[in-house]
Amino acid sequence: DGAQRRKSDHIEVVRAGHAASACDPGFDAVRLVHCALPELALDEVDLSTRLLGKPLAAPLLISAMTGGPARAERINIHLAEAAQELGIAFAIGSQRIALERGGAAGLGAELRRRAPDVLLFANLGAAQFVRGYGPEEARRAVEMVGADALVIHLNPLQEAIQPEGDRDWRGVLDALGVLAAALAVPVVVKEVGFGLSPAVARALVARGIAALDVAGAGGTNWALAEGARGEGRTRAVAAAFADWGVPTAIAIRLVRAACPTVPVIASGGVRHGVDVAKAIRLGADLAGQAAAVLPAAMESTAAVVEHFTILRDQLKVACFATGARDLEALRRVPLLDEA
Amino acid sequence: DGAQRRKSDHIEVVRAGHAASACDPGFDAVRLVHCALPELALDEVDLSTRLLGKPLAAPLLISAMTGGPARAERINIHLAEAAQELGIAFAIGSQRIALERGGAAGLGAELRRRAPDVLLFANLGAAQFVRGYGPEEARRAVEMVGADALVIHLNPLQEAIQPEGDRDWRGVLDALGVLAAALAVPVVVKEVGFGLSPAVARALVARGIAALDVAGAGGTNWALAEGARGEGRTRAVAAAFADWGVPTAIAIRLVRAACPTVPVIASGGVRHGVDVAKAIRLGADLAGQAAAVLPAAMESTAAVVEHFTILRDQLKVACFATGARDLEALRRVPLLDEA
Amino acid sequence: DGAQRRKSDHIEVVRAGHAASACDPGFDAVRLVHCALPELALDEVDLSTRLLGKPLAAPLLISAMTGGPARAERINIHLAEAAQELGIAFAIGSQRIALERGGAAGLGAELRRRAPDVLLFANLGAAQFVRGYGPEEARRAVEMVGADALVIHLNPLQEAIQPEGDRDWRGVLDALGVLAAALAVPVVVKEVGFGLSPAVARALVARGIAALDVAGAGGTNWALAEGARGEGRTRAVAAAFADWGVPTAIAIRLVRAACPTVPVIASGGVRHGVDVAKAIRLGADLAGQAAAVLPAAMESTAAVVEHFTILRDQLKVACFATGARDLEALRRVPLLDEA
Amino acid sequence: DGAQRRKSDHIEVVRAGHAASACDPGFDAVRLVHCALPELALDEVDLSTRLLGKPLAAPLLISAMTGGPARAERINIHLAEAAQELGIAFAIGSQRIALERGGAAGLGAELRRRAPDVLLFANLGAAQFVRGYGPEEARRAVEMVGADALVIHLNPLQEAIQPEGDRDWRGVLDALGVLAAALAVPVVVKEVGFGLSPAVARALVARGIAALDVAGAGGTNWALAEGARGEGRTRAVAAAFADWGVPTAIAIRLVRAACPTVPVIASGGVRHGVDVAKAIRLGADLAGQAAAVLPAAMESTAAVVEHFTILRDQLKVACFATGARDLEALRRVPLLDEA
Ligand SMILES: Cc1cc2nc3c(=O)[nH]c(=O)nc-3n(C[C@H](O)[C@H](O)[C@H](O)COP(=O)(O)O)c2cc1C
Ligand SMILES: Cc1cc2nc3c(=O)[nH]c(=O)nc-3n(C[C@H](O)[C@H](O)[C@H](O)COP(=O)(O)O)c2cc1C
Ligand SMILES: Cc1cc2nc3c(=O)[nH]c(=O)nc-3n(C[C@H](O)[C@H](O)[C@H](O)COP(=O)(O)O)c2cc1C
Ligand SMILES: Cc1cc2nc3c(=O)[nH]c(=O)nc-3n(C[C@H](O)[C@H](O)[C@H](O)COP(=O)(O)O)c2cc1C
Repeated sequence: DGAQRRKSDHIEVVRAGHAASACDPGFDAVRLVHCALPELALDEVDLSTRLLGKPLAAPLLISAMTGGPARAERINIHLAEAAQELGIAFAIGSQRIALERGGAAGLGAELRRRAPDVLLFANLGAAQFVRGYGPEEARRAVEMVGADALVIHLNPLQEAIQPEGDRDWRGVLDALGVLAAALAVPVVVKEVGFGLSPAVARALVARGIAALDVAGAGGTNWALAEGARGEGRTRAVAAAFADWGVPTAIAIRLVRAACPTVPVIASGGVRHGVDVAKAIRLGADLAGQAAAVLPAAMESTAAVVEHFTILRDQLKVACFATGARDLEALRRVPLLDEA
Repeated sequence: DGAQRRKSDHIEVVRAGHAASACDPGFDAVRLVHCALPELALDEVDLSTRLLGKPLAAPLLISAMTGGPARAERINIHLAEAAQELGIAFAIGSQRIALERGGAAGLGAELRRRAPDVLLFANLGAAQFVRGYGPEEARRAVEMVGADALVIHLNPLQEAIQPEGDRDWRGVLDALGVLAAALAVPVVVKEVGFGLSPAVARALVARGIAALDVAGAGGTNWALAEGARGEGRTRAVAAAFADWGVPTAIAIRLVRAACPTVPVIASGGVRHGVDVAKAIRLGADLAGQAAAVLPAAMESTAAVVEHFTILRDQLKVACFATGARDLEALRRVPLLDEA
Repeated sequence: DGAQRRKSDHIEVVRAGHAASACDPGFDAVRLVHCALPELALDEVDLSTRLLGKPLAAPLLISAMTGGPARAERINIHLAEAAQELGIAFAIGSQRIALERGGAAGLGAELRRRAPDVLLFANLGAAQFVRGYGPEEARRAVEMVGADALVIHLNPLQEAIQPEGDRDWRGVLDALGVLAAALAVPVVVKEVGFGLSPAVARALVARGIAALDVAGAGGTNWALAEGARGEGRTRAVAAAFADWGVPTAIAIRLVRAACPTVPVIASGGVRHGVDVAKAIRLGADLAGQAAAVLPAAMESTAAVVEHFTILRDQLKVACFATGARDLEALRRVPLLDEA
Repeated sequence: DGAQRRKSDHIEVVRAGHAASACDPGFDAVRLVHCALPELALDEVDLSTRLLGKPLAAPLLISAMTGGPARAERINIHLAEAAQELGIAFAIGSQRIALERGGAAGLGAELRRRAPDVLLFANLGAAQFVRGYGPEEARRAVEMVGADALVIHLNPLQEAIQPEGDRDWRGVLDALGVLAAALAVPVVVKEVGFGLSPAVARALVARGIAALDVAGAGGTNWALAEGARGEGRTRAVAAAFADWGVPTAIAIRLVRAACPTVPVIASGGVRHGVDVAKAIRLGADLAGQAAAVLPAAMESTAAVVEHFTILRDQLKVACFATGARDLEALRRVPLLDEA
C-alpha cells in the first residue's frame, strides 16, 4: 500500500543519489592536529564508551533506516547482526507501519534475538504524538523489539514537502515532554538531515529528553528525497531546499554549547572514521551513518560488519594519529585553527 | 518601429540567457537556521501582508516586464490573471510607448478588468520626467490601467549603453520629488538590476517616495541585454559591466539599514521561495521576479499561476521549517552566522 | 640579430598567450557602488586630466611595447596616430636598439610628427644606467622622438630569467637619482608586470622620480615570456614565477598610500574601462594597457582607435553609473566593502 | 622478501601518483613582496649556509628515499653524486634492511666515497628504538655511510595503516632522548608527510634533538601509499586520511614559533625554488624534496643535478627578485599580507 510503497521508494531514491544534500557537512574545515609521537600502542586505543547506561565497543550508531516490509526484514537483520558482532548501537527505522498493521515488518522480537546485547533504539515520528499516539503506542514500539530507548524523529520539512505529509506540528514539544515522563526507557530526539538548532535542543532537554541526534545537513536530504518521488510541483518545491539546513559539524558545536551535559549523537553526511573523530572532537558522544550503509545493508551481515569495521579502524587510527588513547583524550586534541 | 522592436528584442535576449548577470545575488551566503520543532501547522502559516494599504495573499510581486505590443498584450493578460488568482502584486512594464502612441499596447483598462483586486503598479522611466513628462503623464499612466501606485524605474546604465538611450539624468531627483507631491497615488522607485545604494535610497525617501525596489545585481543585467542587441562597439562596451552592481542580498541589507521604515521590495536574481524567505529575513517586505517568469508568461495564465504557486509554497515551507507563523516572525528567525 | 630577434619573439609569445600571469590582478574584488540616480548627463562626464603638465582627453596610456624593427615601425605608427586622435598618452618601447644601432627602428622623429600633441614617453631600461648609459644617452632617447618625459623600466626578474640578461642591479637607484637631477624632462619609473612595492616607490620618489607606473602582476608575466623563448632549463626556472608579483590592484593601494602626492599610473592586467575606473578609485592617475592592445596595434591605426574608444567609453559609463562627473569625483565614490 | 618488496612498491606507488596528498601545502597563500630595485647582482646572491656545523652551497636537502636494494643502489649513487656536485645535503632512506641483513643495500661506504663533502644523514625509524634498537644500532647506521648526523623518522600513521606495521609507539620519546645523549653525532627528527606539531617539536627539543624536519602535509601521503599497496580494507581505511596532516607552510610557522632557535628543515610538497624561498621566509633553515626528485633519481646523476640546479636557480632568482642578498635577508623580506 501507499505507506509501504513510500518506504520502498525512499530506498531507491537514496541509492540513486537523488537525495544527496547540496550542503557541505562542514567536516573538511575542521582539522585535527597530527601527533607524530603518539606515545601509544594502536591496540591500546580504547574506543569503548557508554550511552544511556549501556556499553559500546565504539562510539558508532547504525542510524535509523527501514525499507518496505519485504526488504526491511532482510536489511534489519543484517544491521542487527552486524551491530551485535561489532558492539555498536543500532537504531531501527520507523515502526509506524508495523504498529498500525500488526505485522512487525521485520521489526519484531526476532531482531532482538539477533542482537541481544546491542544498545537498540525503537523509532517513531514525532508528528504521530499529536495525531493519536501516546505513551501506550510508544511502549508498544519499544516492547516490539525490546529496545533500550526510543528515538523520536523530527522531520517537519520532509512532511511539508510530501503531499500526504503530517503538517500539523502544534503541541509536539509538549507531547514529547509527556512521553519522556511516562516512558520507562529514555527518549532520544533526532532530526533526519536538516539539523537540530540550539533553541530546539534546549527546549527538548528542558522537557526531559535524554539525548539528541543532530542529524544535520550534508548527507541525505529528505526534501529532495520526497521531491524525487513526487510529481512536477512537489519536485519543484523541494528543489529550493537542496542546500537547506544546519551543516552537521556546525550543528554539533552549537548543540554541544547549548546543552553541555546531554549526550549528543552526530549524523548527517558522516563519510568515514576521520569525520567521526572530528564529530567527537567537536562535542559528540556517538556518530551515526545511514545512507552510506545502505548498499552493505542490502547485501549481507558480513558487508555491514566490513563497512563498520573500516569506520571503526579509521577512528582508531585517527585517535592514534592524534595521540588520543581514548575518546576523552580525543575531545582535548588541538584543532589546527587553535594551534 | 524602433521602440517596439527594442522591447521585442529584449524578450529574445533575456530568454536566450544573454542578459544573465555574472554577479552572485548573494542569497547562498545567507543561511536561515532550520527549526526541527516548528510548533505550527503548515496551513496555519500566514503569508498575507499589506503594501501601500492593499492586502496581498503573499509577499510576491510579478516584476515589471513588457513585450512588443503584439506579444505584450498576451503576456500582460497572463500575468494579470495570475496575479488576481493568487492575490499577489503585479507591476506592468513601461507605459511610455502606450502613452505616446495612444494605443494601449496591452496595457489598457482590460488589464484591470482581469485583475480587479490586485495591487497594480503603473510604470514609467525616470528619465522621461526631465524630458517633457510631468505629473500629467504620470496620472495618465496610472489611469490607463487603474493602478494603485506608480513605479518609476531608474536605469541609467542601460540608457548609457544603448546608443539611442536617455543619457541626461540631471534633475531627475527633483522631478521625482515633484511627482511624489503631485500624484494622488504613491510613487515607488526601483532600479532594473544594478541595485539601489543607501545614498540613493535616502535621497528618494527624503523626496517623498513611498517605497523602494532594490532590483539588485545577480539576475537580469540590462547592460548585457542592450549589448546583445547592439553592434560591435556597444556589445564591447557593455561586456565590461557583466559583473556590475550591488548584489541583491547586500542591497536589501544596506537599503533597509539606511531607510528603516520605508517598504522595500527585493528583486534581481530571486530564484525561488527560499530566496524570498531570505530577502524578507534581511529586511524586504516583498520579493519580485521578472526574467524567471518570462517563459510561463509567454505560455498561459495557468503556467504563471503554477510558477508562483511553487514560489509561494516554497516560501510557506521555508516559514514552516524556520518555525515562523507569519512574515513578522520570519524577520526574527536566527541566521546561522549569528547562532 | 639577437636583440631584434628577442623583441620579435616577445610579440609572438605574448600573442600566443604564453606570457599570461597566473596571478589575479585583483580588480574583481574591488566593487564600485552603483548609483541609480547619477544627476549627470553622460556627455557631461569629463575624463580629461593632466599629467606632467600636459593635458589628456582621458586618463589612458598606451603602455610601452616595441617589436623587431621591421614590425615595430608599423606598430608604433598605429599607436602614435591613435594616441593623437584620442588625446591619450603613449609610451614607446625600449629605445636601446635604436640608440645603439643608429637606425631609429620606427622610433624616430616621424613618430612625433604623427602624434604632435600627445604626452609621449621615451623608454629605456634601468639596468643600462649602470652599464655605461648616463644622462647623455637618456637625452638622446628623449630627443629621438621629442618625448615629454622619459620612462625607465625596472625588470630585474625578466633579466634574471633571460640567460643573456643584465643581472647586476647595483647602483641603479643612485643612477636614477642622477638621471632625474640631470634631465630637463621628468623621469617616470615603472615595473613591467611584477609591481612596484611601497619601499621601492618611496626610494624612487626620494630620488626625484616624477611619477610611477606600478605595472603589477596579473597581466603580462615577463618571466614566463622569457621562459617560453628559452630552452629547457630557462623555461623550468621561469615556471616557478607564474604567480609572482604584487597584484596590480594591491600595488595601486600600497604605492598610493606610500606616496600620497606623486602621480601613479596603473598597469598590468587592466582589461577594460571598468578596471580603469577601479584603478583610479584606488588612487591611480592614469591606467595603461600593453598586451591587450597588441592585436589592434599590429592591424591598423583605426583598430587601435576603436580599442581605446571602447575603453574610454567604458570608463565614461562607469563614471556615469557611479554618479561621478569627473575623475576627482570618481576617487570619492564609495566601495561596496565600505558602504 | 617482504620488506624489500614493500620499499620497491613504494617507488611505483609514488611515481604513479597514488600517494599524492589531497591537502594544499599552503605555499600559494604566502606571497613574497617583489622588489623591483634589488640593488644586487644576481651572481652576488649568496645561498650558502651551514647546518649542524657543515657548510652547504644552498639550503637544499635531498630528502630520504630508498628503493628495493637492486634499485636503491643506483638511486642512492645518483643522489649522492648530485649532492656532492651541488654542495647540498643528502639524507639516505631507512637503513633498517641494510642493518638487519648485513648487505648494505646501496647504503654502504661507497656512498660516502661518492659524496665525500656533503652533509650526509643516516636514517632509521623511531619505532625501532622501542623494538630492540638502541645507540649501538644507531652508531652502526651512522658508521655504515660515515654520516654527519642521524635522521630519525616518525611515521606512526603510516605504520598504523600498514597491516604489518609497528604500532606500538610507547616510550619512543624517551628512547630518542637516550639516543640523543648517547650518540656522538646530532640527531635530527622528522615526520614523513603529516607534519610535526608545536607540542611534538617542543618535546623533541627538550630531549636534546638537534634539528627538526617538519615534513608536512601537501606532498607525499604515506597513508595513501600504504593503502595503494594494500588490499581492500587497508585501502579503504587509508582513504579517509587523504587530507590528513599539518600543511607544510603552517607547520613551518608553528614549529618555528614553538622552537625559535633549533634548525628547522621544511619538506612535504615543496614544488620549486619559490616554495623554498617561502619556506625560508617562514622560518625554515633548509628545504627538502623527495617524491619530485624520484624520476630524476631513477635516471642519472646528471638528471638529479639538473633538477636541483633548477631549484637552486629559482631560489636564487627569488632572492634577487625580493632584494635579498642572502638567506638572512630573505628571512626579513616583507610578506604581502603585512605590507
Ligand atoms: C533509506 C533511509 C531511511 C530512513 N528512515 C528513517 C526512519 O525511518 N526514521 C528516522 O528517524 N530516520 C530515518 N532516516 C534518517 C537517518 O537516520 C539519518 O538521520 C539521515 O539519513 C542522515 O544521515 P546520513 O546523511 O548518514 O544518511 C532514514 C535514512 C535513510 C537513508
Ligand atoms: C523582459 C523584461 C522586461 C523588463 N521591462 C521592464 C520595464 O519595462 N520596466 C521596469 O521597471 N523594469 C523592467 N524590467 C526589469 C525587471 O522588472 C526587474 O527589475 C529586473 O529584471 C530584475 O529582476 P530579475 O533578475 O528577476 O529579472 C524588465 C525585465 C525583463 C526581464
Ligand atoms: C610585447 C610587449 C613589449 C613590451 N616592451 C616593453 C618595453 O620595451 N619597455 C617597457 O617599459 N615595457 C614593455 N612592456 C611592458 C608593458 O609596458 C607593461 O608594463 C606590461 O606589459 C603590463 O601591462 P599588460 O598586462 O597590460 O600587458 C612590453 C609589453 C609587451 C606586451
Ligand atoms: C619513495 C620515497 C621513499 C621514502 N623513504 C623514506 C625513508 O626511508 N625514510 C624517511 O625518513 N623518509 C622517507 N620518505 C619521506 C620523505 O623523506 C619526505 O619526508 C616526504 O616524502 C615528504 O616530502 P615530499 O612531499 O617532497 O615527497 C620517502 C619518500 C619517498 C617519496
